[in-house]
Amino acid sequence: MTALHLPLARTNFIRSSSAPPPPSASTTPVTVTQNLSYWDSIYSDINSHLKKSIPIRHPVSVFEPMHHLTFSPPKPTAAALCVAACEVVGGDRADAVVAASAIHLMHAAIYTHDHLLLTDRPGSGIPHRFGSNVELLTGDGIMPFGFELLAGSGGADSEKMLKVVVEIAQAVGGKGMVDGWSGRPSRRLDGCGAACGAILGGGSVEEIDRMKRFGVYVGKIQGLLSDESGSEGGKVELAEKWRDLALEELEYFEGKKIEQISTIVRVT
Amino acid sequence: MTALHLPLARTNFIRSSSAPPPPSASTTPVTVTQNLSYWDSIYSDINSHLKKSIPIRHPVSVFEPMHHLTFSPPKPTAAALCVAACEVVGGDRADAVVAASAIHLMHAAIYTHDHLLLTDRPGSGIPHRFGSNVELLTGDGIMPFGFELLAGSGGADSEKMLKVVVEIAQAVGGKGMVDGWSGRPSRRLDGCGAACGAILGGGSVEEIDRMKRFGVYVGKIQGLLSDESGSEGGKVELAEKWRDLALEELEYFEGKKIEQISTIVRVT
Repeated sequence: MTALHLPLARTNFIRSSSAPPPPSASTTPVTVTQNLSYWDSIYSDINSHLKKSIPIRHPVSVFEPMHHLTFSPPKPTAAALCVAACEVVGGDRADAVVAASAIHLMHAAIYTHDHLLLTDRPGSGIPHRFGSNVELLTGDGIMPFGFELLAGSGGADSEKMLKVVVEIAQAVGGKGMVDGWSGRPSRRLDGCGAACGAILGGGSVEEIDRMKRFGVYVGKIQGLLSDESGSEGGKVELAEKWRDLALEELEYFEGKKIEQISTIVRVT
Repeated sequence: MTALHLPLARTNFIRSSSAPPPPSASTTPVTVTQNLSYWDSIYSDINSHLKKSIPIRHPVSVFEPMHHLTFSPPKPTAAALCVAACEVVGGDRADAVVAASAIHLMHAAIYTHDHLLLTDRPGSGIPHRFGSNVELLTGDGIMPFGFELLAGSGGADSEKMLKVVVEIAQAVGGKGMVDGWSGRPSRRLDGCGAACGAILGGGSVEEIDRMKRFGVYVGKIQGLLSDESGSEGGKVELAEKWRDLALEELEYFEGKKIEQISTIVRVT
């Protein structure tokens, strides 16, 4: 049986270069370095764009929490998948960075309100960062700011951009809300991120669908592995099944550069 | 001095036909009936569109609160202004109804979270409708649903639609958040609504700017008159000043049908 390694397992975020190497690094150091470099370079581009877009400005009482709550949550794989998917279908990274930044902001808004629900639970013992009213209003401000960033970028053609707005709005809105209530809110964005990247990179309808399903499997695997309950053996089996299904979706892109995106469900 | 009548004063919403007539109705019955019919007909179109767009579907635990929290808040003038502004610049009502519906949803999301802040205040005595977690998540779902409705409508041309997305996102996002913190969140949408209508109706840059400023004055007047504090005399004077400035913006549209939209700051 092939061993399963998921570099992002149990973390739900792309490790930054300064973070300690993942547990499997000692056994496959070269591959890990390559993988991290790819995902790191994507996140570095997203971060640069976000930092340019969200300066700390007057009034500081509003923008300081916004800045903090945008950059402190774990980095979402969905945003990185957006850039990687764009590159697979032949697009330039620059075409996807704005949408990836918007997805990062959606994730941050969701994360902020999830945290609010946790801290507001009686006896939770989890401290508020800023007070519940500030966390509520800041989350409310971050989400539309993501849409503003996206629709106001003037980058991609308008048709594609509207499709991306719909894709993201669906993931975080009505449908996403239903998923969110089922307890795994942060996982709803992975399929969306991959689909947005494929749209912006000029993928065909079939490519967009395949990439979306790939992203959904990535999200399912990560959700499974970050879930503390259940038996380890059962989880590995299910994760392997989903990994195989994810890789099947990528087979459709034969001849294109799928090596790097496939490392997100890396098999050694 | 011209007497000042503001049909929407102290209500922040368009009265429905079944509601009692406004206090000034007895003195100017004919005008009032006409005015209400115009705004009523707009809101009837917006409501129809919203009802088609938000069916109660499975899971009811999610969509029932969404339905309730969408339709129970007072109807925002911003949504009606969107349709009226579109008609002034020569557009068809149908071009603006989707955007007006999206603005209604933004207002509902803001209203829901404002209500949450009030009810969560210790000793407020105001009951939650659904429990704070449901109100939080439902507000979070309603806002992106508005963007989905807008971007997915396929109605207006894509360029215009992206401009409207930006306009609305700015009003409810970063900038709107700053205004919201200053205590009058529901007023931030009026200028946005008027601007969106002018964009969708095919208005020029100057027409869009003028219409936006008109909407901002409408919002300021209504905010002033719904504010319980301050002296009545001072308020009337200030409201009259803003009304005159609002009407000055409309003068730019000479020769176009401004009678109906001007009734929102009605002068008899």
